[in-house]
Amino acid sequence: MTDIKAALRSQRIETPSWAYGNSGTRFKVFAQQGVPRDPYEKLADAAQVHAYTGIAPTVALHIPWDKVDDYADLARHAGEAGVRIGAINSNVFQDDDYKLGSVTHPDARVRRKATDHLLECVDIMDATGSDTLKLWFSDGINYPGQDDIRSRQDRLAESLAEVYDRLGEGQRFLLEYKLFEPAFYATDVPDWGTAYAHCVKLGPKAQVVVDTGHHAPGTNIEFIVAFLLREGKLGGFDFNSRFYADDDLMVGAADPFQLFRIMYEVIRGGGFTDEVAFMLDQCHNIEPKIPGQIRSVMNVQEATAKALLVDRDALSAAQREGDVLGANAVLMDAYNTDVRPLLAELREEQGLAPDPMAAYAKSGYFEKIAAERVGGQQAGWGA
Amino acid sequence: MTDIKAALRSQRIETPSWAYGNSGTRFKVFAQQGVPRDPYEKLADAAQVHAYTGIAPTVALHIPWDKVDDYADLARHAGEAGVRIGAINSNVFQDDDYKLGSVTHPDARVRRKATDHLLECVDIMDATGSDTLKLWFSDGINYPGQDDIRSRQDRLAESLAEVYDRLGEGQRFLLEYKLFEPAFYATDVPDWGTAYAHCVKLGPKAQVVVDTGHHAPGTNIEFIVAFLLREGKLGGFDFNSRFYADDDLMVGAADPFQLFRIMYEVIRGGGFTDEVAFMLDQCHNIEPKIPGQIRSVMNVQEATAKALLVDRDALSAAQREGDVLGANAVLMDAYNTDVRPLLAELREEQGLAPDPMAAYAKSGYFEKIAAERVGGQQAGWGA
Amino acid sequence: MTDIKAALRSQRIETPSWAYGNSGTRFKVFAQQGVPRDPYEKLADAAQVHAYTGIAPTVALHIPWDKVDDYADLARHAGEAGVRIGAINSNVFQDDDYKLGSVTHPDARVRRKATDHLLECVDIMDATGSDTLKLWFSDGINYPGQDDIRSRQDRLAESLAEVYDRLGEGQRFLLEYKLFEPAFYATDVPDWGTAYAHCVKLGPKAQVVVDTGHHAPGTNIEFIVAFLLREGKLGGFDFNSRFYADDDLMVGAADPFQLFRIMYEVIRGGGFTDEVAFMLDQCHNIEPKIPGQIRSVMNVQEATAKALLVDRDALSAAQREGDVLGANAVLMDAYNTDVRPLLAELREEQGLAPDPMAAYAKSGYFEKIAAERVGGQQAGWGA
Amino acid sequence: MTDIKAALRSQRIETPSWAYGNSGTRFKVFAQQGVPRDPYEKLADAAQVHAYTGIAPTVALHIPWDKVDDYADLARHAGEAGVRIGAINSNVFQDDDYKLGSVTHPDARVRRKATDHLLECVDIMDATGSDTLKLWFSDGINYPGQDDIRSRQDRLAESLAEVYDRLGEGQRFLLEYKLFEPAFYATDVPDWGTAYAHCVKLGPKAQVVVDTGHHAPGTNIEFIVAFLLREGKLGGFDFNSRFYADDDLMVGAADPFQLFRIMYEVIRGGGFTDEVAFMLDQCHNIEPKIPGQIRSVMNVQEATAKALLVDRDALSAAQREGDVLGANAVLMDAYNTDVRPLLAELREEQGLAPDPMAAYAKSGYFEKIAAERVGGQQAGWGA
Repeated sequence: MTDIKAALRSQRIETPSWAYGNSGTRFKVFAQQGVPRDPYEKLADAAQVHAYTGIAPTVALHIPWDKVDDYADLARHAGEAGVRIGAINSNVFQDDDYKLGSVTHPDARVRRKATDHLLECVDIMDATGSDTLKLWFSDGINYPGQDDIRSRQDRLAESLAEVYDRLGEGQRFLLEYKLFEPAFYATDVPDWGTAYAHCVKLGPKAQVVVDTGHHAPGTNIEFIVAFLLREGKLGGFDFNSRFYADDDLMVGAADPFQLFRIMYEVIRGGGFTDEVAFMLDQCHNIEPKIPGQIRSVMNVQEATAKALLVDRDALSAAQREGDVLGANAVLMDAYNTDVRPLLAELREEQGLAPDPMAAYAKSGYFEKIAAERVGGQQAGWGA
Repeated sequence: MTDIKAALRSQRIETPSWAYGNSGTRFKVFAQQGVPRDPYEKLADAAQVHAYTGIAPTVALHIPWDKVDDYADLARHAGEAGVRIGAINSNVFQDDDYKLGSVTHPDARVRRKATDHLLECVDIMDATGSDTLKLWFSDGINYPGQDDIRSRQDRLAESLAEVYDRLGEGQRFLLEYKLFEPAFYATDVPDWGTAYAHCVKLGPKAQVVVDTGHHAPGTNIEFIVAFLLREGKLGGFDFNSRFYADDDLMVGAADPFQLFRIMYEVIRGGGFTDEVAFMLDQCHNIEPKIPGQIRSVMNVQEATAKALLVDRDALSAAQREGDVLGANAVLMDAYNTDVRPLLAELREEQGLAPDPMAAYAKSGYFEKIAAERVGGQQAGWGA
Repeated sequence: MTDIKAALRSQRIETPSWAYGNSGTRFKVFAQQGVPRDPYEKLADAAQVHAYTGIAPTVALHIPWDKVDDYADLARHAGEAGVRIGAINSNVFQDDDYKLGSVTHPDARVRRKATDHLLECVDIMDATGSDTLKLWFSDGINYPGQDDIRSRQDRLAESLAEVYDRLGEGQRFLLEYKLFEPAFYATDVPDWGTAYAHCVKLGPKAQVVVDTGHHAPGTNIEFIVAFLLREGKLGGFDFNSRFYADDDLMVGAADPFQLFRIMYEVIRGGGFTDEVAFMLDQCHNIEPKIPGQIRSVMNVQEATAKALLVDRDALSAAQREGDVLGANAVLMDAYNTDVRPLLAELREEQGLAPDPMAAYAKSGYFEKIAAERVGGQQAGWGA
Repeated sequence: MTDIKAALRSQRIETPSWAYGNSGTRFKVFAQQGVPRDPYEKLADAAQVHAYTGIAPTVALHIPWDKVDDYADLARHAGEAGVRIGAINSNVFQDDDYKLGSVTHPDARVRRKATDHLLECVDIMDATGSDTLKLWFSDGINYPGQDDIRSRQDRLAESLAEVYDRLGEGQRFLLEYKLFEPAFYATDVPDWGTAYAHCVKLGPKAQVVVDTGHHAPGTNIEFIVAFLLREGKLGGFDFNSRFYADDDLMVGAADPFQLFRIMYEVIRGGGFTDEVAFMLDQCHNIEPKIPGQIRSVMNVQEATAKALLVDRDALSAAQREGDVLGANAVLMDAYNTDVRPLLAELREEQGLAPDPMAAYAKSGYFEKIAAERVGGQQAGWGA
């Protein structure tokens, strides 16, 4: 139990700046009270999540949404609030130029513009001390024949190589894959195999990031995790959960058993280290944002605690003997354990409130920002 | 062949006013040139689709997007442009009040507001001469426990009954179902069974509308069509196509063979009449809107022509004999036929250009609206 | 807690006779030791499951697999072993005549044969005292055009009506639906809507049975449960679990949270009574059969206990207030509770061993049947 | 058109010996008349398919189903019948030892046995002159925890390396992937990425084979084809079609447009050569086997003809200009063309009957084998 607590104390979960802004579906973005109006306010909110959970010390930025004049100042501000800048996300999907693609666009001018944006993100990494660039491309096509699938791979490879070469010492990029949306026929990085193949060719600074909502129905995500760890190519996670497509619900909300299985493979594969980034990537469309992030951090923590509880010796023994029900029972025994008392104890040992949700609710922070943040443009996708 | 041509001449496909405005995904709505700025301009564009295809004489309105002060005037304008008002669509998903639902919302005040909106749509039917109200509800919940699934059915039933009672002579409503989006855990009308059960209880003026993009992966849509026709409960279609979820691509673009099978069941089941409304419901996110609609109308027409070509006597004989390959071959023979020459001939007989796409492109209409429609607010979802 | 224990004591889960025989995939049926060779031995094994769990007192028969000369004798034998005969399942898919269907076959002779088999199953109900007939049809077609989808519905309706009329006082049938397999293009009862529509027309003795593995990917099963209960048409469950298609794994093995949500809707909808039959329907292809059934019964029991623990007043309050996270938290609090100590206590109060799996393993029963049941033909699908 | 005909004349499609035997689902294998009773009779039937289509000159063997004492004699017999031995398929899933896996089994003894079987298949390649070994593993686990996902990858890699080293000059193996079935939780080679990663490490003699029925719902297969061709790792196809899972219907029956898109990417990517093997892999459960194979060969041929008809210059031009509808129209124009007259003409130029299905039906071959092949054990899975 001491080991488990030590492991849990070492866990780090990154929250994304955009999660604190408004989000929605194509049908409607519902506005909420107290939503941040600039990157500084987003960092302040993220700091609340860390203050109550103790394990969310970094915040991912999204460029251009989080563009500021002085990134060093932003990083300093983060530090004062008790958090640090984490991964830099490069968004190349909200400019009219990108209607038919960014780095895979048929027009070289658009590709140049998109790649320049990626390079600028590396500049921001330099300025903020971030060591990770996260690359997700909405690139793809909606209709068969619309563009040449293979040529788009050539263009993608060319852009990735240029960005890879620009990475400095201790920097890396994570390539994200997604089955579909916003492209509806062929996406240029649709699955882990595509991301993996590009990363292998590029070298050790290129790794794959697994967004748990980006797979075809039925995909066994923990298999992918185990496989990528075996290959040394798992760079991190974008956590969220889904029942259907890329629903971007709170991680652990749709299938907590799956989250547990993923965390088990992470631990079993030696991925429970700083090498693998645990990031949230969710849309709180109808629930309040800060509590949504706190609950999500707790969900990952609970899944991790359960995964750490697995009696691996007993599991291996049952597996070796071909004891199907016995091996399954060892895993389920850990999953069925209620780890909430353990985590409450752990928090108290660290000087935190045992129930982060209740503590935040009582803090008055929400009432404060709801009162203060009036006027201005609330942050959201595109703002 | 004479019969087939006569049948094709009688076909009517309705286009939706919103398809002429801008649309997109949650990631980005890309603006296009020449997009309408009000319902009048939308009708003008829809009239172009009818002018070149000859089989798209009606236009569906969406309320509140198409709200005008004087609906009689709008209907008159439509007539002058060569089209008529078709179904009235009631949109109850873009008001902040509807964040947790419209007619199924836990709060009676919101339900009242939503139901009043539906009743207002019946008023608009009266004013425009429309005989069909189309009801799609985005209502649902994102998280298990968020609201009570069964109580929401009670509320839905109550609202539907009130609207049903308001319908006049010769009026009906079509209830639409959708698996998911924008709700991501439980949708209140997720499948045809739910829509059907409500409609059966309400009576003959309530029917089910099949949106071809609203099903779970693997669903056999033509089975549903055949079943609903057998029950007298198929009210119409919202046509579009998809590879993944509710992609809203042009109908026939993703799986033309499926569209053919659907049209075959329509014809076989006696649904190729005015009783069943054939409507388009698509998003032209990256392609031009008017040509997108023309192509879609042509795709439905081609599928219909192929379905009419099926040698039903030969098919029945093979089916009766249990000749699996023979029966399949009869169907495939029709599908594999190139019906484009037949349709070109049909158009020429009706005084239309044989190639609607080329004719529209040459007409100069796009250049005209691109030049004229500058300034103002382009129509789109929410506008 | 007293109420919860009382509810749990009243729970009844039925196991199927065929689960004790060999099963497999189309690729291979792996034989196991000690497998029953006749219906009497199957009942003896089922009695073991009841002996250790205390909540599995009935056993479903499958005809023709469980055909015997004297059903009264079989029922008596069951009673001596400590169990009773449950539902009668009519299998009309393993005769060469049924290659193209049973009750929906194009040939009237085959339909007559199939319907006669169903009627014979009602005779067996009379002879055994069973009150439930379970109807699953593998009927469907593999290729578009192979047979007429709508005519098959007519034939289905005709056969169901004949069987319905034959049902005696206090007897009912449950109609099962399944998306696909063994038919691969169109199944004649593919979804709950189809089963529901037929049952509504037939009357109160016809109800729908939900097999948890028979849905399209992404289907919200608990919604269907809630809806059918609201309509008074939920007759029972065939429990199992799956990651992909109709995998027929042990219930609760693939998605225990889903099982909990289903049980919650059962309880909330008033379905936790004798009106709704809780049956297992699984294939223990690689794991031992009796322990597989014990584990499955325990999994349903654990999900039920968690569902009973939901604080429904708190849940309703949060739902009424539109407190998305609060309502979800009430549900998750029950799910995250470890109910195993409670169930162990309950068992001991009933004179059972606290750990049924361990108790069975220690009993020596497996060693006994493995030694005794040599020679003869092991039971399996088709035997 | 001359080029297209030349290309079509060069096409080669391989049929699998097992397709001529009985097959079925887990529910029932329906027997058919005239089914072969040994490998010699299977080859005779395969020769019929070639005789009428002119493009099916090779036959894949499956070991152990096609084990004979003298492979040289079998190859000679094939030659006399007008066909040749194609790929050797290694089946390691029908021995009781393989219940928990073959090359990934936890027990080293079973792994040794399985790998030895693979090596024996290379011996058979030497004896028959076959240059291709096809490896499909049913290996996987049904329950979380049942075995260690990562260790199974280690074992897989070890076995593959041993087989790779045994390959002679001019020999290769193709590694097949499959999402699920018969394993229902985690399959050891579930997707193209896994197969690709192993093949890249092994070297140029290891390539990926794409079975068109082995993907998750929504997977874009032509993307995979384009990607693997770009990497030089596409070894061939196992063609079939499906609506749901691995339905193994006749290729082109479920989604002919998808088959066309796949063939287009093959041609565009330079894969229309002897390097890429075009093999059928289907179950004719309810339709007659030889006609089922003839129809399937014709379906691939028709899709190929359409793909060859694509005006690639026009397509490229439209793609470069970002003309979404124009580019799609170029592709659809080829797809919508009726190529059956062209193929009939091509056959007649080659001295074949224009309609292979009709010619076979008239030949009397079926009546002959139905009369002759009585007694003995019909071939099927496991025989």
